[in-house]
Amino acid sequence: MDDLKKVYVECKQFINGNGPRNISILTEAFEDLDTNISSDMYGQGAWIDAFQEELAREAGKEAGVFFPSGTMAQQIALRIACDRKKIYSIAYHPLAHLEIHEQDGLKKLHQIKTILLGDQERLLTLQDIKSIEQPISCILIELPQREMGGYLPDYADLVEISKYCQEKGIHLHLDGARLFEVLPYYKKTLQEICVLFDSVYLSFYKGIGAVAGAVLLGNHNFCKEAKVWKRRYGGDLISLYPYIIPANYYMDRRRPLMETYYEKAKDLAALLNKIQGVATYPQIPVSNMFHVSIEGSREKLTEALVKLYHSTGIGFTNNIKEKVGGQCFFEVSIGDALLKLEDHEIDNFIKEFDELLKNNK
Amino acid sequence: MDDLKKVYVECKQFINGNGPRNISILTEAFEDLDTNISSDMYGQGAWIDAFQEELAREAGKEAGVFFPSGTMAQQIALRIACDRKKIYSIAYHPLAHLEIHEQDGLKKLHQIKTILLGDQERLLTLQDIKSIEQPISCILIELPQREMGGYLPDYADLVEISKYCQEKGIHLHLDGARLFEVLPYYKKTLQEICVLFDSVYLSFYKGIGAVAGAVLLGNHNFCKEAKVWKRRYGGDLISLYPYIIPANYYMDRRRPLMETYYEKAKDLAALLNKIQGVATYPQIPVSNMFHVSIEGSREKLTEALVKLYHSTGIGFTNNIKEKVGGQCFFEVSIGDALLKLEDHEIDNFIKEFDELLKNNK
Repeated sequence: MDDLKKVYVECKQFINGNGPRNISILTEAFEDLDTNISSDMYGQGAWIDAFQEELAREAGKEAGVFFPSGTMAQQIALRIACDRKKIYSIAYHPLAHLEIHEQDGLKKLHQIKTILLGDQERLLTLQDIKSIEQPISCILIELPQREMGGYLPDYADLVEISKYCQEKGIHLHLDGARLFEVLPYYKKTLQEICVLFDSVYLSFYKGIGAVAGAVLLGNHNFCKEAKVWKRRYGGDLISLYPYIIPANYYMDRRRPLMETYYEKAKDLAALLNKIQGVATYPQIPVSNMFHVSIEGSREKLTEALVKLYHSTGIGFTNNIKEKVGGQCFFEVSIGDALLKLEDHEIDNFIKEFDELLKNNK
Repeated sequence: MDDLKKVYVECKQFINGNGPRNISILTEAFEDLDTNISSDMYGQGAWIDAFQEELAREAGKEAGVFFPSGTMAQQIALRIACDRKKIYSIAYHPLAHLEIHEQDGLKKLHQIKTILLGDQERLLTLQDIKSIEQPISCILIELPQREMGGYLPDYADLVEISKYCQEKGIHLHLDGARLFEVLPYYKKTLQEICVLFDSVYLSFYKGIGAVAGAVLLGNHNFCKEAKVWKRRYGGDLISLYPYIIPANYYMDRRRPLMETYYEKAKDLAALLNKIQGVATYPQIPVSNMFHVSIEGSREKLTEALVKLYHSTGIGFTNNIKEKVGGQCFFEVSIGDALLKLEDHEIDNFIKEFDELLKNNK
């Protein structure tokens, strides 16, 4: 563990996230349950059925399938779309989770070719989609584009993309790992977003902050096929309730807070943008997340943050990444942790951060 | 739910298994833990590291990787073996889990061809292996052969097979889903079995009776590759502790009981074999499991069992399968449940079963 991580775990309060990922996240969700509740058995049972159906209904989809991970759920969604058209090419943004975080699972397990649309600096557009020359089965759109800092297209643009894909018979899949987090910005219901897509993946351990797990939503046939693939992947576990029950528990608790997280993210970004040499991306967040970009090396920033954590007892990040051009950055994702801080504590934290960066040059 | 399942769930005692699979299996394992224990994070952390290392050490292997499921672990083991030799053919028994329970995941995800050795009535032998004409990368052996009722080759035969595979450069993989359960019969340590294989999969929800999960053991390079594939499959979850902690908990509690389960299985099989029209396979069990084969239709047996459960309050099975030749059968797997029954309760249960079968003809 490096210095930053060591000091970070000793902090008592945090700017980022929902607090430490310890086993209380699980035990709290089970605390008040009758221990005679039966396990789901290989994807069947009262809890899993109800959970899948409720989300599908709210999203305006026919059915849902609970998965241990989004990686598994999304590869399967894309494979089904390819099998239907017998075209093993799909398109997505170069910063898609499948492209950079999954060890090329999609390519190694399915031999599916990927066309990259947009770049590190901008979202993919309808124009990009129209410019694809070869046949494709599927387009994946991630809302928000997490690895850019959390950017969103306008809802009107999504509608146009959806219309175009429908006309062309292209399956439109939504990577909605952080979809609950963007509903306040769009001022739309889950259904108003999901209706634009043929299939949707939602995650339960990002803003929702549960233990792990994902759901894939689509029509009946799509979900039936997805269950077969889930078995093939070894994701059809005898018991998925250790993920389903906390997902259900934290959905109830944190979905009503998404608007607050979003407002707090905008406030915090505004404070950070006043510091010289600091910029957030997006400048005005459109969800609970953004990137903080800072002039200077990772070493210099680490030095400043270690001092800041010691002095305030408040942790900000334990994961700084380098950027080209002598800058570095880290991700911020607002959850329960920031809600526990008083305004004056945040102001003081920002003031000390500002001073440390000045002195650190 | 059919009649048999309905009456079965209302039983208060059971012959089969470790008792109902309800959420207390999870909550009991977490009850006395400090809730500040940190989650593992994408396969790293104190609990997962210790668990993997301890099992690897006991099995005489260099390393271990915890997986959410055996399906995932074994497909990956076979893929790695094939990649090494660049030969995409492997051999196993026609009743292998991969052949009959995984929706052809191995073939659909890896295009690996399978050669079937042995048949429904007998285990695969060294002779079968020697008779394979085409090149293969890997042989999978399951101990015990579950879908036959739980048969085992002699240890000496395993040694011969292992020696032959080593000479020929064939990767020998062990499906040890129920390996802890056969150690009493072999009178061998985990290491004495595992040393015969290049890679080993162990499961935590069969005899061990935890929530779910598996471990794959092998050398360092093998396990390093397995972790990359685990990420590709979407099995590298942010938090696997909901499976690891119960696996650890029930390993401690049930491994010392495997000898008792085995003895009880032999006693029960002997009692059943005295009933006319009833036979167990194996006749004398070699683990905690066996099949009970019964003359007559599934409907007739269901009728008798419904009466038996009503009369005794003791459940035997809720899953009867048909066999060719006017017979049916079910699987028995001895665990904690039978240990809670007094000898006279078991004797009475067998006596009533005998009478019901006689009257039912």
